[in-house]
Amino acid sequence: MSMSLDGFIAGPNEGPGNGLGDGGHRLHEWFLTGADADHKAVSGRLGGINGQVVDEFMATGAVVAGRGTFEPAGGWGGDHHDGVPIFVLSRREPDSEIGKWPLVRYVSDVRTAMSEAKRAAGEKNVLVHGAGTAQLALDAGVLDELEIHLIPVLLGQGRRLFENLPADQIELERTRILEGEAGVTHLHYRVRR
Amino acid sequence: MSMSLDGFIAGPNEGPGNGLGDGGHRLHEWFLTGADADHKAVSGRLGGINGQVVDEFMATGAVVAGRGTFEPAGGWGGDHHDGVPIFVLSRREPDSEIGKWPLVRYVSDVRTAMSEAKRAAGEKNVLVHGAGTAQLALDAGVLDELEIHLIPVLLGQGRRLFENLPADQIELERTRILEGEAGVTHLHYRVRR
Repeated sequence: MSMSLDGFIAGPNEGPGNGLGDGGHRLHEWFLTGADADHKAVSGRLGGINGQVVDEFMATGAVVAGRGTFEPAGGWGGDHHDGVPIFVLSRREPDSEIGKWPLVRYVSDVRTAMSEAKRAAGEKNVLVHGAGTAQLALDAGVLDELEIHLIPVLLGQGRRLFENLPADQIELERTRILEGEAGVTHLHYRVRR
Repeated sequence: MSMSLDGFIAGPNEGPGNGLGDGGHRLHEWFLTGADADHKAVSGRLGGINGQVVDEFMATGAVVAGRGTFEPAGGWGGDHHDGVPIFVLSRREPDSEIGKWPLVRYVSDVRTAMSEAKRAAGEKNVLVHGAGTAQLALDAGVLDELEIHLIPVLLGQGRRLFENLPADQIELERTRILEGEAGVTHLHYRVRR
């Protein structure tokens, strides 16, 4: 997740047509610049440290995403990257064609989504997409690692990555710090259990 | 400021006798261990990268603190370090002896506090102490740099460093990242204006 130093992953006033909230695009500038439409356009050719990090998340073996991330993104055209399976966390069945695409499966609870995604990914990592899903996975004890792209900006207001978690202290192991281009710092932690 | 990865500088249920909130002491373990009572006890002898960072903030030429930080800390015995002046941000006059100590001055607005502290500090930096004061200084445009000691823990609940700021995007320049001991990462940014 790309997060501002003050903890936001989207600006205020999120909504249809303003998916990242006011000013939220600032958080994704480090890998989406100019004409690049999405993550697929930049994978493999960004270069540098930021490119290495993008290539890593594009080398994952499965994706778990909340419905609120998946559907506004148009389901990534049915393929997030390389034809890996996409598990969509949703309490309701899909109500449009998008949910019936071959790589997509709707799953109603985060434990099932994560365990099936891990099985599908085999030796590879699972990409967890969206703050709500990350929070649920963390709270359920099924999130193993955190990779945060810390953006050198304060948004002041918006949607936070870490919110609505119980007051349970969760210890982390710092596993890697990379100083990326454009002032972005990639923080990698393992969740201790 | 020492901040958990999820943005907290104190745990929940802060109050008299529980100044750092539940579990909040975890955030200060990196420099206060065992018998060390406060920052003065460790200065100059912690060593390593964490010691370097402590020594830096103990080499500042003035302190600006909120009354809510200063008074519960017992006014640091009248001397935060090295006899530098302490400017206490408060809308009210001091109502106890603590506010009348020689190094201490109560000031009612953050701009005055910061400009007088900068003048008193001369060539040295000013240490801004407390989240509320940092927020006010940031919002007033008189905070020049941010040094965050990022602690490898999630608290889930508590008091945030960044809260109640307006939705004004503030760009930062990343000036230094230090990987300290015990998984603490020291992030240094300059505020761009």
